[in-house]
Amino acid sequence: MSQSRFHRFLTGVVAVASLAFAAAAPAQAPQASVRPKVVLQMSEADPAKWNLALNNAKNIQTDLGAANVDIELVAYGPGIAMLKADSIVGNRVDDALAAGVKVVACENTMRNQKLTQADMLNKISYVQAGVVEIMQKQQQGWAYIRP
Amino acid sequence: MSQSRFHRFLTGVVAVASLAFAAAAPAQAPQASVRPKVVLQMSEADPAKWNLALNNAKNIQTDLGAANVDIELVAYGPGIAMLKADSIVGNRVDDALAAGVKVVACENTMRNQKLTQADMLNKISYVQAGVVEIMQKQQQGWAYIRP
Amino acid sequence: MSQSRFHRFLTGVVAVASLAFAAAAPAQAPQASVRPKVVLQMSEADPAKWNLALNNAKNIQTDLGAANVDIELVAYGPGIAMLKADSIVGNRVDDALAAGVKVVACENTMRNQKLTQADMLNKISYVQAGVVEIMQKQQQGWAYIRP
Repeated sequence: MSQSRFHRFLTGVVAVASLAFAAAAPAQAPQASVRPKVVLQMSEADPAKWNLALNNAKNIQTDLGAANVDIELVAYGPGIAMLKADSIVGNRVDDALAAGVKVVACENTMRNQKLTQADMLNKISYVQAGVVEIMQKQQQGWAYIRP
Repeated sequence: MSQSRFHRFLTGVVAVASLAFAAAAPAQAPQASVRPKVVLQMSEADPAKWNLALNNAKNIQTDLGAANVDIELVAYGPGIAMLKADSIVGNRVDDALAAGVKVVACENTMRNQKLTQADMLNKISYVQAGVVEIMQKQQQGWAYIRP
Repeated sequence: MSQSRFHRFLTGVVAVASLAFAAAAPAQAPQASVRPKVVLQMSEADPAKWNLALNNAKNIQTDLGAANVDIELVAYGPGIAMLKADSIVGNRVDDALAAGVKVVACENTMRNQKLTQADMLNKISYVQAGVVEIMQKQQQGWAYIRP
């Protein structure tokens, strides 16, 4: 190759190397700019635990800004009772829903306890298996809190 | 370069760029195809907690297919009692083992409680420090559930 | 291209492909050499739970070497009581601090309980929101233990 051709070849090499580094960049610094996301496991029927968790959710939104964080409460096992329409913490769950917190009930648990969606608080969401939802969220990069 | 050479050069650039992107691809979408894996922390001697955890394991296998998920229960501290040969939940632990769940006892805890492998349920596994096992699994991408 | 030029071109392709793979490598095996790091959630005032957690911290340091692992205890909610100057587990917390464990109190909780830093054990650290600290640590790759 002439010098000019060699120069163009080098330019090509640099361009391709840049592409390679650009493609690889997300791998090198994946955590710096990660959106805060947290899933809270609500597997107990203890109102004090629920109040603590709902306080946690509020503090997280205050600290980070409600628009900047995803919060999901997943209720299963004995915890499902706190999402029934007559729940002792129903008002606070409604407040959390209004503030943008996602609240999810486990349909496996509901079936075991002969509950249907008509028995539950309005505006909550449903998943087939609460524990699988919690697993998947973690493996998708969400933090996990067990209040 | 002639047009023909330039064309071959471009082909080379594209080939190398493709290699680069292929190499980088696992970094860009590592979570889409990740195998479900979960470690459950069993640090309490409460049979109700163990039954809930063993139900969790069963639900996870039903929901995802037993062949498609790795489940490991790690017992330490007071939880170790539930893996003794005379455990009140021994039959259910045996069922979980038969279903492909890995059940692990902490040897640090066993030493503190003067237990040997002869005192324990058959077919369980052992690690030096249960809490380190749980840490390492998480840092290797496993989800964590604390029943 | 002549054979010689083609050879140099191929050399360039191999060099760039190597760069690409080198750049991508951290993404392909990020977990093999990851430093062990764990955050422990201390949200209860139960001295038995604290003793178990402090035993956990000691076992982790024994198993991995204190210099090779980062351990952080984050106290919030009812757990904050165990970091007060008159804490029943104060001596053990002091031992953990001396052994290199980081111990962190939640200032949101302190404000709710009318506590100031003067009321607390020496040498502990402070964060605005304990639960956010725990979230962030996890999203930065730390394992999480809820004793």
